[in-house]
Amino acid sequence: MIATIIGTGLIGGSLAITLKEKGVAERIIGVDQNAAHLQKALDLNIIDEKATLDEAMLRSDLVILAIPVDAVLKALPGIMDKVRPNQVVMDVGSTKEKILQLVAGHPNRGRFVAAHPMAGTEYSGPDAAVRNLFVHKTMVLCDVKNSDEDALELVENMVDQLQMRTVYMNGEEHDLHTAYVSHISHITSFALALTVLKKEKESGRIFELASGGFESTVRLAKSSPDMWVPIFKHNRNNVLDVLDEHISQLQQMKSLLEEEDYDAFYKLIQKSNKIRKILK
Amino acid sequence: MIATIIGTGLIGGSLAITLKEKGVAERIIGVDQNAAHLQKALDLNIIDEKATLDEAMLRSDLVILAIPVDAVLKALPGIMDKVRPNQVVMDVGSTKEKILQLVAGHPNRGRFVAAHPMAGTEYSGPDAAVRNLFVHKTMVLCDVKNSDEDALELVENMVDQLQMRTVYMNGEEHDLHTAYVSHISHITSFALALTVLKKEKESGRIFELASGGFESTVRLAKSSPDMWVPIFKHNRNNVLDVLDEHISQLQQMKSLLEEEDYDAFYKLIQKSNKIRKILK
Repeated sequence: MIATIIGTGLIGGSLAITLKEKGVAERIIGVDQNAAHLQKALDLNIIDEKATLDEAMLRSDLVILAIPVDAVLKALPGIMDKVRPNQVVMDVGSTKEKILQLVAGHPNRGRFVAAHPMAGTEYSGPDAAVRNLFVHKTMVLCDVKNSDEDALELVENMVDQLQMRTVYMNGEEHDLHTAYVSHISHITSFALALTVLKKEKESGRIFELASGGFESTVRLAKSSPDMWVPIFKHNRNNVLDVLDEHISQLQQMKSLLEEEDYDAFYKLIQKSNKIRKILK
Repeated sequence: MIATIIGTGLIGGSLAITLKEKGVAERIIGVDQNAAHLQKALDLNIIDEKATLDEAMLRSDLVILAIPVDAVLKALPGIMDKVRPNQVVMDVGSTKEKILQLVAGHPNRGRFVAAHPMAGTEYSGPDAAVRNLFVHKTMVLCDVKNSDEDALELVENMVDQLQMRTVYMNGEEHDLHTAYVSHISHITSFALALTVLKKEKESGRIFELASGGFESTVRLAKSSPDMWVPIFKHNRNNVLDVLDEHISQLQQMKSLLEEEDYDAFYKLIQKSNKIRKILK
């Protein structure tokens, strides 16, 4: 089949590479508002050709939106109006509720599949695209009951070929859980970078002393604001809710340190250690 | 030479393995209050023999304290009283100011070298000991002007053999900078784990959805309270200071989200991206 990737960055580019490699798509058409990215994607052989959205829509079996969620919200209505009965449209955006609200009740709703691969790195653009980004990761598919059977089947088959696990949930659940396991991690990492950059005037010292632990907690702070501001915007309530909880946990730790209640501090760390059972 | 390692856990065990492998020490004596750890270290061939501290002190050229900082503070005075002119004592504790205050003015002060390898993992105990933990990492040596020349030379030679970079600072600087690049990362990670464990009642969902980003920010929350509570205790003022800054950064992000000031939020993320220049 012919697949169009709208947005030839980290996720779109990595998808393009993998779909070609696995033989899911014979041909990849790239669409990108950023002409430099699009050319780069072509130069790197990530896509087979460049096209405008309209040209690409005429010739594609599958259209994948791999752009920031605010751009998905802008582009999707026009795409849904144009989609033909033998085409499938999917998005891979990091928030889902507003996207699903937008297409709800659209006459072509059945042609749309809402997806979110729980995979990524802190880098962006076509240069960041890598093969094997998705292997053994989770693909969340949302509100699949509103997708046509054949459209869902095409996407599920693709997910299998990508060697991903599939999890099904509705948009509301998706946005709640991703706030917990993804969005708050980015908030803390951005804030940690700002903290250290402010405190540590001598940046040479950071470089000298930072070890794996620091790099691990702060690496997400390299992530692009173009991707992340729309996520926080469109998942604002859930993010605020978990951020409130996180600030209050930090304040509790601060109080215990101020009071020098090290027994309670010890118990708190022991409690946080329970994350061991969940992560490997 | 014969080296004694007091504390056969992650750091002590990894040191033991590396000192033997590099030929820095021909024989490693293990000392540990935890009899099970000590036996395990022997079974794993991390140490060559078990001994009491007094026995070990009689036969060692180098004595390394690789125990939590509160335990260092307890054990060090007795060791300093017993150290002979041809012996070297070093610690590898994660805070330095109180340790250096403790030995300041001791008649045998010259035999002591205060060190801190900026390396570790979130695991602990002899099972966690690994070769190559220290390669290309930084060893901080503190207040070296108060160490005898030959004692310092022995430690510096060892650091070279471990393929580590050396950074020199005083105890005060050390505790300040490690609060910024190490201790605060652990605080945020513990708090993030507590946040998610509280919010995410369905732990299955964390497992399904958590990807690399979440694991990265939360992995330090697996760290042992036995090691970390003493660090926070003995670096309390610096940790409280940087924790205050971190909470206020998070509160600023929260306010901007509440006010839906996404332009300012964007700029804040851009600012945090400057951490890219510092990390690779």
